[in-house]
Amino acid sequence: MPRNVFYAQSGGVTAVINASAAGVIETARANRARIGRVYAGHDGILGALAEDLIDTSGERASAIVGLTHTPGGAFGSARYKLKGLAEHRAHYERLIDVFRAHDIGYFLYNGGNDSADTCLKVAQLARELGYPLTCVHIPKTIDNDLAGTDCCPGFGSVAKYVATSMREAAFDVASMARTSTSVFVLEVMGRHAGWITAAVGLAEDEEHPIPLLLLLPEVRFDEPRFLAAVARLVKMHGYCCIGVSEGLRGADGGFLSESGLHDSFGHAQLGGAGELIAKLTRDRLGLKYHCALADYLQRSARHIASRTDLEQAYAVGRAGVLAALAGQNAVMVSIVRTADQPYRWTLSHTPLARVAGRERMVPRSFIRRDGFGITARARTYLQPLIEGEAPPPFRRGLPRFTRLANRRVPRKLAAYSL
Amino acid sequence: MPRNVFYAQSGGVTAVINASAAGVIETARANRARIGRVYAGHDGILGALAEDLIDTSGERASAIVGLTHTPGGAFGSARYKLKGLAEHRAHYERLIDVFRAHDIGYFLYNGGNDSADTCLKVAQLARELGYPLTCVHIPKTIDNDLAGTDCCPGFGSVAKYVATSMREAAFDVASMARTSTSVFVLEVMGRHAGWITAAVGLAEDEEHPIPLLLLLPEVRFDEPRFLAAVARLVKMHGYCCIGVSEGLRGADGGFLSESGLHDSFGHAQLGGAGELIAKLTRDRLGLKYHCALADYLQRSARHIASRTDLEQAYAVGRAGVLAALAGQNAVMVSIVRTADQPYRWTLSHTPLARVAGRERMVPRSFIRRDGFGITARARTYLQPLIEGEAPPPFRRGLPRFTRLANRRVPRKLAAYSL
Repeated sequence: MPRNVFYAQSGGVTAVINASAAGVIETARANRARIGRVYAGHDGILGALAEDLIDTSGERASAIVGLTHTPGGAFGSARYKLKGLAEHRAHYERLIDVFRAHDIGYFLYNGGNDSADTCLKVAQLARELGYPLTCVHIPKTIDNDLAGTDCCPGFGSVAKYVATSMREAAFDVASMARTSTSVFVLEVMGRHAGWITAAVGLAEDEEHPIPLLLLLPEVRFDEPRFLAAVARLVKMHGYCCIGVSEGLRGADGGFLSESGLHDSFGHAQLGGAGELIAKLTRDRLGLKYHCALADYLQRSARHIASRTDLEQAYAVGRAGVLAALAGQNAVMVSIVRTADQPYRWTLSHTPLARVAGRERMVPRSFIRRDGFGITARARTYLQPLIEGEAPPPFRRGLPRFTRLANRRVPRKLAAYSL
Repeated sequence: MPRNVFYAQSGGVTAVINASAAGVIETARANRARIGRVYAGHDGILGALAEDLIDTSGERASAIVGLTHTPGGAFGSARYKLKGLAEHRAHYERLIDVFRAHDIGYFLYNGGNDSADTCLKVAQLARELGYPLTCVHIPKTIDNDLAGTDCCPGFGSVAKYVATSMREAAFDVASMARTSTSVFVLEVMGRHAGWITAAVGLAEDEEHPIPLLLLLPEVRFDEPRFLAAVARLVKMHGYCCIGVSEGLRGADGGFLSESGLHDSFGHAQLGGAGELIAKLTRDRLGLKYHCALADYLQRSARHIASRTDLEQAYAVGRAGVLAALAGQNAVMVSIVRTADQPYRWTLSHTPLARVAGRERMVPRSFIRRDGFGITARARTYLQPLIEGEAPPPFRRGLPRFTRLANRRVPRKLAAYSL
């Protein structure tokens, strides 16, 4: 008797997370003998807790293809972290109740670190309660900081966006430097791990030399050395471009831009590192600056998504279903690199116990000795992830995105309040 | 005897100003019987004053085609405004001296309002001094605020970028609103005229409904009405997107974000309107916000340029040469719209006296009655300008841009200091 899939998106969305959803749905549809319907959580895991489930089975095949062109999270995502089994046991039991009521045999959770942890705990409780459930984590995070996979779907497209944007802006600044701006700062995401900042370094290559400094969160900010580096580049080239992580840390180890706000995961809400850095070059070096803050634009820029990233996002969704059908429980689908050039990759599985609660930082060997740039090794790693274009269809000059009908599954249980 | 062209770029550069340069150079090359070489000013008009001229004649045809893919200003631009003929007479006379020394018969100045004014004054002085010179202004400005033309090359591409970015971000925010961000603010350029802000409105259409508010510089900011509008949209849709002009003005008529800085044209340097507005929604309505500041990214985003804009940028460069050959002096090449749908346009000329010193604002009929959006009439005007894609060539995942050799013309005159 085929059982149903519950699929949910977690945390910050990406330009390609919906491609993972498409991979899940299309693969489930291709396995109708063993899988019933794909239910998606409305607003992620909250949808499961509230028994607010979306039935994807009525969506046309063309709408599912449309998902691969559409940024954001098609069913809603959530920044909501389930705590430990002891502390949040009622929530976990409610999840199992909902799964049981809707005959969910497969839990596919699409997210980053926090959702990997939740996925593992749900698998543990299901086993403890004797409820037959296969839990598979589908990786997603623009931050590229998940352990146990060579890269994370979502990252390659942000990397392509920030490198493209910095290259374009550098051509602008270069032409204006004499009478106007000589310092251009681009602040990018990446709270703890500097993968996105590192990707800004790809803007520069032998054909496109750019005086570029990177400020990664892995390298403590050293103001005098930074200012000396800016002054040197401006003297030599007339201008200087700077890629700054939102999570840049000062000498005391604290975020340079700590705003005092926290999100519901308890993470500090950052913003302003770019402006701070830019103002420093003005105040200390007397340079005129401009500062861009890409913010959500960088993670939703489906129009400049990496084809490699898009393909991997789809593939991990597809592999999630196949892994679940194969009875792989409490694993994350992982991307394994088998060759750098030409780039080759395959998929595997990593036990969730080796994923949850870890964070993969940019290794020291990827960071230039002076701390302000990336090494050849970093380029070898990053380069394949941004390759290939996969523009969405355009209509009347703008990308055309898909909104699903998101028809709800009738509730069977009593209401539950968080 | 063929005479030479002097071409210069002025003010803020755009994603397509180099297409105008390509139009100038290719058209001049096609008219070798009447035009000698195309010299470009290194860093715009400063290059003429300093006799720092670039000889484009050695550049390969493929490099000139490459210009049409390359953002920024290929020869350098300048924010340097020549004042009145009385005040800056020595500078104007120096220009004529340099033109005479290099047998410049055609002055093609590619810029906005300020350069239109300079172009007119150079034409006046040349006539006064009996120096045979044909002066043609080639329009360029992302702000779309030039009088005497239906639209300005450079604007359509920014419009496409901001509308695309807002649509993409809206899909992101919509999926996160329940547990995270419910207000997303995008600050865009446009110091006095709100054309770019208006273009953000294109993000929303019947197929992509978005709860969207626009804050144009033409409409005085009314805090209570704004907050009520935000609260209403968030209540109805769970989130709200806001496009804000950097030049938003408060009830007192002053810039909301006046930073006290001025550029060398004497214009106030702005920045921060978006952040101010966003913080207001947090402080007064208790909403969680994110704010993006596209800054230079919006005007250098060649990867998402409008094909219409690119074609017009090339065409005005080409027409500038043809107008000069036809002896049209002290005119600006202008774009004339002959039909909205299907869009048709042609080129004409406008006397510079009717361009210089004017600024074209967004008309009241383009602004929704409540002030927070655009009308159908605005859409009819804006829509054709963003149509068509014209991506640059990509290599290794990134757009490939051209840098010219920029070989200098040997100096013939004594040095001149500004």
